[in-house]
Amino acid sequence: MAVSTASRLSPPRFRAPPPSLHPPTRRSRFSPVRAAKLEAVLSIGTHLIPHPRKAAKGGEDAFFANCDAGGVFAIADGVSGWAEKDVNPALFSRELMRNSSNFLNDEEASRDPQILLMKAHAATSSIGSATVIIAMLEKTGTLKIASVGDCGLKVIRKGQVMFSISPQEHYFDCPYQISSEAVGQTYQDALVCSVNLMEGDIIVSGSDGLFDNIFDQEILSIISESPGVDEAAKALAELARKHSVDVTFDSPYSMEARSRGFDVPWWKKLLGAKLIGGKMDDITVVVAQVKTVVVPEDEGGDTEEQKGNDQGAAAVVAFAEQND
Amino acid sequence: MAVSTASRLSPPRFRAPPPSLHPPTRRSRFSPVRAAKLEAVLSIGTHLIPHPRKAAKGGEDAFFANCDAGGVFAIADGVSGWAEKDVNPALFSRELMRNSSNFLNDEEASRDPQILLMKAHAATSSIGSATVIIAMLEKTGTLKIASVGDCGLKVIRKGQVMFSISPQEHYFDCPYQISSEAVGQTYQDALVCSVNLMEGDIIVSGSDGLFDNIFDQEILSIISESPGVDEAAKALAELARKHSVDVTFDSPYSMEARSRGFDVPWWKKLLGAKLIGGKMDDITVVVAQVKTVVVPEDEGGDTEEQKGNDQGAAAVVAFAEQND
Repeated sequence: MAVSTASRLSPPRFRAPPPSLHPPTRRSRFSPVRAAKLEAVLSIGTHLIPHPRKAAKGGEDAFFANCDAGGVFAIADGVSGWAEKDVNPALFSRELMRNSSNFLNDEEASRDPQILLMKAHAATSSIGSATVIIAMLEKTGTLKIASVGDCGLKVIRKGQVMFSISPQEHYFDCPYQISSEAVGQTYQDALVCSVNLMEGDIIVSGSDGLFDNIFDQEILSIISESPGVDEAAKALAELARKHSVDVTFDSPYSMEARSRGFDVPWWKKLLGAKLIGGKMDDITVVVAQVKTVVVPEDEGGDTEEQKGNDQGAAAVVAFAEQND
Repeated sequence: MAVSTASRLSPPRFRAPPPSLHPPTRRSRFSPVRAAKLEAVLSIGTHLIPHPRKAAKGGEDAFFANCDAGGVFAIADGVSGWAEKDVNPALFSRELMRNSSNFLNDEEASRDPQILLMKAHAATSSIGSATVIIAMLEKTGTLKIASVGDCGLKVIRKGQVMFSISPQEHYFDCPYQISSEAVGQTYQDALVCSVNLMEGDIIVSGSDGLFDNIFDQEILSIISESPGVDEAAKALAELARKHSVDVTFDSPYSMEARSRGFDVPWWKKLLGAKLIGGKMDDITVVVAQVKTVVVPEDEGGDTEEQKGNDQGAAAVVAFAEQND
């Protein structure tokens, strides 16, 4: 029973607004008028704040973002338990992201995030493991996603979360993970899904350090107030960081822990204490907005001058290493 | 920071078990051995319990399920507010479902749930509106989904919810809706997404009457205990019904209402009351399990004897009208 009828609504229909046009200026100066088509591209902003105690080494998250051919981004969260075995957990996640970026030159991998994950994993020789998400936008507006573990991704349309992916885990705090060891997961274990996006849709993706420390309503609020994807990514990361070090904040993480039966010791309970607080962690945020660009009908859409997102024609590739 | 390393895990890798083989028996008796391929099909169970006060007329939900060509199902939830205008809210949802089922004979619509929704909506002449979800499984195992409003769908793999769709709404209790009126939504407003499924995956879909009255943990528990899809659909609907009429049950619906700022009147609050209880509603449940069948390599997979799910070769088409 949906209570309200359509006729009681103010006209609520969402239609994609007319595309903000970024025609291929260089080409058009020399070309006759020709039929044009629309292609979807991503404008991408990123921000990484390492775990306070890991800041000196840049943390254990890694990511890349590339605005070529629609737009691709990926996030890997190195599993910290490896430090107990004297393995730097950042090495695996960073190499996995470098390899993922390199395999975008591979025809097959550049069109399929699961294949990209397979090839990048196979090429990674570091010891360690990581949760990972890879997302790529097709020119038609379809966002293809492959995810292993608990990196998150939400799509916001008209001020609502209209799509989000679920984390995969073996048990609380032990997510599925791509690993150098045979007991880990592989591309075959990935959640593979896609969602059709419209102009203006906003993608918010991140390592669990983001989604463990910030609620959907806070994400929606920040997105609505941010002038652009860079500012949004920074604001989201900073609020998540603030919550992560706040021992009085009842975070999504502490609420989830309690719902799984975790609690403070009995003697603390007697004193009125409860399991609460943010979760200190590396925090990686990717915010991407779908835009449309006009390209000539008879072009393949692969030449540089057809890119029109905010970051210009050149590929934007960023690694966590740059934040070290 | 994912705390646990892969090496601390018991071998957790999920691999699809070998397919339960339902070879095309009739054909194979007369044919030589030939190369075979695997195709994904759905085994579908359904159950509808109308709103207690609407039971005499069968309620306002409608659905269909069809196991042909992989498997398709759809649910429509008639918007009850139309009764205030002396319109039977069931007419629109039922006609929309009948038309959706009929358009499965349409080549284009049978491959794309959004096109199916477009054509079924255009062919529907009843006055009214409805939330709607249509899902269809491709032989490759990809589940394609188009949803307008707050019907839900979750995919369960290895005892976890690994995929779920978000509701779309204008405001609390006023979902997006396909309508006979111009102010309603259309196929263009649908959430369109897809997810790659594996053998054994379970799909739980339903009208909001299901998901407003039952928690994920309860769904997982019932799915794990049910011997088959029919029993699971019935058990889920019955538990949701039980909660829906329980004024002391703190349901997902009452929790959501409180989180949106709704509350009991101040004088009840003074007496210690809080907004609580299930939500009486029509409850439609579809439970589907992914199975694989072996078909000869040189067959198109469209002949009757290649169907191998539990419900046999014939299409299973059910309408809510049958429950009247």
